[in-house]
Formats: sequence, structure tokens, C-alpha cells
Amino acid sequence: MKSRPIRELGENTVVSRFRALASGTLGSDVLVGPGDDTAVMVVSEERLLLLACDMMVEGVHFRSEWAESRQVGWKAMVQNLSDIAAMGGQPAAAVASIASPGDLPEEDAAALADGLVSAASRYGASLVGGDLVGSPGPLVIDVAITGWVERDHLLLRRGASPGDVLLVTGALGASAAGLAARQDGLKEAESSLLAEALTAHHEPQPRLAEARAIAATHRATAMMDLSDGVAEDLPRLCQSSGVGACVRTHSVPIHRACSFVANQLGINDLRLALTGGEDYELLFTCPSNAVDEITAAVREAAGASVSVIGEIVGEQNVTLMDAEGRERPLGAGFDHFSGAARELGTTR
Amino acid sequence: MKSRPIRELGENTVVSRFRALASGTLGSDVLVGPGDDTAVMVVSEERLLLLACDMMVEGVHFRSEWAESRQVGWKAMVQNLSDIAAMGGQPAAAVASIASPGDLPEEDAAALADGLVSAASRYGASLVGGDLVGSPGPLVIDVAITGWVERDHLLLRRGASPGDVLLVTGALGASAAGLAARQDGLKEAESSLLAEALTAHHEPQPRLAEARAIAATHRATAMMDLSDGVAEDLPRLCQSSGVGACVRTHSVPIHRACSFVANQLGINDLRLALTGGEDYELLFTCPSNAVDEITAAVREAAGASVSVIGEIVGEQNVTLMDAEGRERPLGAGFDHFSGAARELGTTR
Repeated sequence: MKSRPIRELGENTVVSRFRALASGTLGSDVLVGPGDDTAVMVVSEERLLLLACDMMVEGVHFRSEWAESRQVGWKAMVQNLSDIAAMGGQPAAAVASIASPGDLPEEDAAALADGLVSAASRYGASLVGGDLVGSPGPLVIDVAITGWVERDHLLLRRGASPGDVLLVTGALGASAAGLAARQDGLKEAESSLLAEALTAHHEPQPRLAEARAIAATHRATAMMDLSDGVAEDLPRLCQSSGVGACVRTHSVPIHRACSFVANQLGINDLRLALTGGEDYELLFTCPSNAVDEITAAVREAAGASVSVIGEIVGEQNVTLMDAEGRERPLGAGFDHFSGAARELGTTR
Repeated sequence: MKSRPIRELGENTVVSRFRALASGTLGSDVLVGPGDDTAVMVVSEERLLLLACDMMVEGVHFRSEWAESRQVGWKAMVQNLSDIAAMGGQPAAAVASIASPGDLPEEDAAALADGLVSAASRYGASLVGGDLVGSPGPLVIDVAITGWVERDHLLLRRGASPGDVLLVTGALGASAAGLAARQDGLKEAESSLLAEALTAHHEPQPRLAEARAIAATHRATAMMDLSDGVAEDLPRLCQSSGVGACVRTHSVPIHRACSFVANQLGINDLRLALTGGEDYELLFTCPSNAVDEITAAVREAAGASVSVIGEIVGEQNVTLMDAEGRERPLGAGFDHFSGAARELGTTR
């Protein structure tokens, strides 16, 4: 039997196999293994340890002609900080491994390190170690991060129930707009909204304060971060929870920078907001009677908004409902947008 | 001012700069930051969290025509398990990131995952997550690992004092012999000792039981694992401790597989044993009156030997003394051996 290349199997199949293999041998201290934003280990009655990693490859996840080295380091760390946020946790120690061609200029190496360290220290984490290795290939950066969460603050992808409402923090699509603007060569000087989109794309912020506020209400039922966009991430939350969801298109908070760039490029801003990745906003669920409490908590803790964008349903599929009440599958017709920043994609 | 490529600066300079940058922003929970085998964070009065990472690049750290995919995964995990051992700790949860060309055959991907999982579970660790990303470049595997150590078991690279003796577990050079045999095309079928060398190179074992036994005596003063060989690693231990060392050539335990291969290839087995990396034996120090106790503890816990190979001295350089009492700098004339498995090298 001929062995197929993993490209043909697709990311989901390969990742599923890896997860199944690893899940068979987990120690008794592992509360949550592969498949959520982070793994979760029991440390004491109250305290849980979180662990996650995220890898970036030049030419796949970033392009050095678009992103400054400091931004690449910053984003590599923020991806991981966002995973800790997604669990309701607080980041602690991180390590970074870098495979680099020998011709990387020293100032780029220094800027990369500065980005990693700056993002970590900005959000209360410490970069405590790493590995630097030579490579004939593209620059590869992998960050692994630990965090802590109280057992009663932990929020997983599973836990959403039919009848819960579906919410997001902030507004969506700014990062995707920044990427689209780069790809289409829009000029930075043209507008402050364009600059905002580019900043969102290259220097994202993890929603740690928002996540802690949501977790502290003890009212949310499931949570994850939006690293790949609602169209890719919501089905994951639904699958983990064994539920479906209906997103109301007119309720989706579209970032004004997304609308601006979409208009400039003649593309649909809703589509960009739902399919674009790397917003690092939080996607979560709660009973409908908890919305006011959570909204107030997030506003107070982080000055951020929360929007109800739909409902969790029992039937296990994910749909979009427009203002006229017409329903269609989420993601239909979005394929040419997805995967712009990814080849095989990430496991979380 | 022109920015130089990092190749020209050399690994040590780049890594030193990274460490200096990261060390300036460590949180108060960080007991040991960059520069030891793992970082160490305070969790409670008695309990410390360990965190480390190690990256491997195809064509630099391994060659797929020599190593089976399962062996590559195994070794990637063992490097990290060995870092936990070096601190006197016990491994807990690990994550693995893989950047892979899309044409990696599915059976190789499965074997790689199997190697990672097998090594983790063999030594009481859990592979709890990871990231799989596409890459146009060589296969890159990065593992990050956590571990636990009791505060009174923690062993660092610093702590060695003049007058302490210098010891290693087991015997040295088998892994380097395996690599040399591969490089020179020695045939596997020729001898069981050659097979032993190849196994040592491709399927190393971390000395976790040995390390725990050494730590439990509370008599060792400093410890690290031999990932790059005595000639590279001993100067690191000495620098961390602010001491020097003298290694007695006739006391170095040379692995019989190393002697066999060296003889076949017409090279010096002592040199191979001291400069070859990836033995993952432990290099440690203790007062001379603790040698018997430690030796007995390691034999009982792991059935392994311990050898005194020299002394720690106050003068900060590292020397070799032959049977006639002649002293010369360690590493002199060894340059053409070093770096065979590394371009920029590793940070630990």
C-alpha cells in the first residue's frame, strides 16, 4: 500500500491521528489533553497548569517583506498568550525556539527577540528560555507557554448547551483586512483606518483581561480564541460541545477598519470578518440571562465590548441567518478566503 | 553601520544577547531564567516547575536517510526529558510543534508521532498537545516540556566548588560513535557493538532514574546533561559555577561501542568520547566524601555506574591531564569534531 503525502490527507486527518495517538497515553494528572486551546494539568485542588504551543513559518504565516522582525516575534508570543486567555487563565513562563538561516541579519535577530520579550512582559509572562538552531530553510519560530488558572475559572471549548447565546468580544475582521490590504498593495499612508488594520494584523493583542473578567463571572459555558476566524473556529467549539450554532449576520460586530478596507478592495466586509483569522478576540457562550453581567464585567475590566452574535442549537451544524431570516451553512462560498496565511493550518 | 548576518556573530554571541534581553524582564516567580538546562519557576514552598524546549531540523540535527521517523520523534522527546533529568526533576507534560513539507509520507508522520508519544510515555510524561504547520523548508520538530522538582532536589549548573570532584554517569562516546559510523558508511551488520553505537545515537535514553537518585542524596553540588559532549558542556558548567576543572584522561569511561568504532575508523576513542554529543549522560559534581554514597544510590536506583573523571579547581579554565601528569586545555585540537550535528548550535 502506497503511503500518501500528508498534503493529500489534509490537516484535519493528520491532526486527528496525532491526537488519538497522544490521547491514549495521558497521565492521570492531565485534565484536558490535545484538542482545546491549551492542555490542562491538575496541580492542586484549586490550581491548574496550562500548556500550549504555536509555530510560525516564514512564507507561510508571515512574510518578512511585510512584517518587521519585531512584529513577527510579538505575534508569535501573542498567539500563545491568546491561548492562555481562551482558557480563562493567566500566562506565566514561555520558551521560544528559533530555526534560522545563518544569513539572518543581527538586527533582525535582535528585533525578533525584542518582540518576543516585549509581548511576554507586556502581559505578565516571562520568556525564560529557548533554543536557537541553524537551518537551511525558512525562519521558524515556535513558542510554548505555561499559564495558571483556578479550577473554577477554567473555560473549555466543550460546555456550550442548546439555548446558550453565542458572543464575541470586540469587533472582527481588522487583522484579515490588514492582510488583505498587504496582499493587494494598499498604501499605508492612505488612511488611519488602513493603519489600524495593519496594526491589528501585525501587532495583535491577546484578550487576557477580557477573558479573566468573563471567567470570573462563572457564567460562561464555553470559550476559545478566534485565531482562525469564526467560520473555522465556531465549528470547533460546536464539535467539542456536541452542539450546533446559528450566527445572525446583522449581529456580527464588524471592525470599522475591516469595513473600510473591504470597501476599498470591493469585497464583502462581513465575509472578511467571519473568515479572516488572527483577530484573537474571544468566542464564548453563556445562558441568555448572563449576558448583562458578563458585558458589564468585560467593560469594567478591559473597557471592551461584548456582542451576542447568535445562538447555540441542538442540531449539530453551523449556520448563518441573514436579516430576512434566511439560513445557510456557515463557510459556504468562503473557501477562497481561508488558508491565506496557512498551508496545513494549525492544530488549535 | 551594516548589520552582520548571525552566522558571523556565532551562536554564543547571539544566544548571550537573547538571554540578556529576556533576563531583564523575568517575573518574581522565576527562580532560574535562561542559561541552565531548564528554567525554574516557584509554585509553592516545596514545589518548583521546570520548563525547557529543544528544536531539531532535518539536515542539521538529523538526516532522514539515516534515522527512521520514529527515531527522530523519540530523540526530539528524549532531548527534553534529559533536560528535566539534568535538574533532578520528574517530567510531566510536553507539547510538540512540527513544521512539515506537504510531501511527508503519512506513514512517516505517524511514525514521528509514535516516537514522540512512546518516549514521553516510557518516561512518565504526557504529550498533551502540539501544532502542525506546513512549510516549504526542511522538517522541523520542536518539543517543549514541563517537569516538577522538589526545591531540595533541584540541581543547577552553578554550585560546583573548588575541591569538588567531577563525575559522569555511564560511559561516553557511544552516540558519537554511531554518528561517525553513519558518516563513514560502516555497515550495521558487521558487529553488535556497531549496532549498539547506532542505537545509542538514534534511540538515546534520558538518565531520569540516575538523576533522581543523585538529587535524592542531597550531596551533589551541580549537574547538567551531556547533550553536546564534555568538551562543550563542562566549560558551561564551570562558567556557571565560576570555577575551572581538570579532567583526567585515564579516568574517562569510554563506551566499548565507541572504542570499537573508533578503532574501525582509525580515530582516537578518547577524543570521540569527550567531543561527541548526545550521550545524555549526566555530568555532575560533589564533595569527594560523597562519591561512595552517590555511586551506591545510582547503582541501586538505575543499575548504572558513576565515574569520577576529574576535579573542580579555582582557576577558571578547563584542562585535560594525561596519565603522565601533562596538562593541556580541553578541546584543543578537537575543533574538526565539533559541530557535526549542528550549525548554529543549541542554547542549552
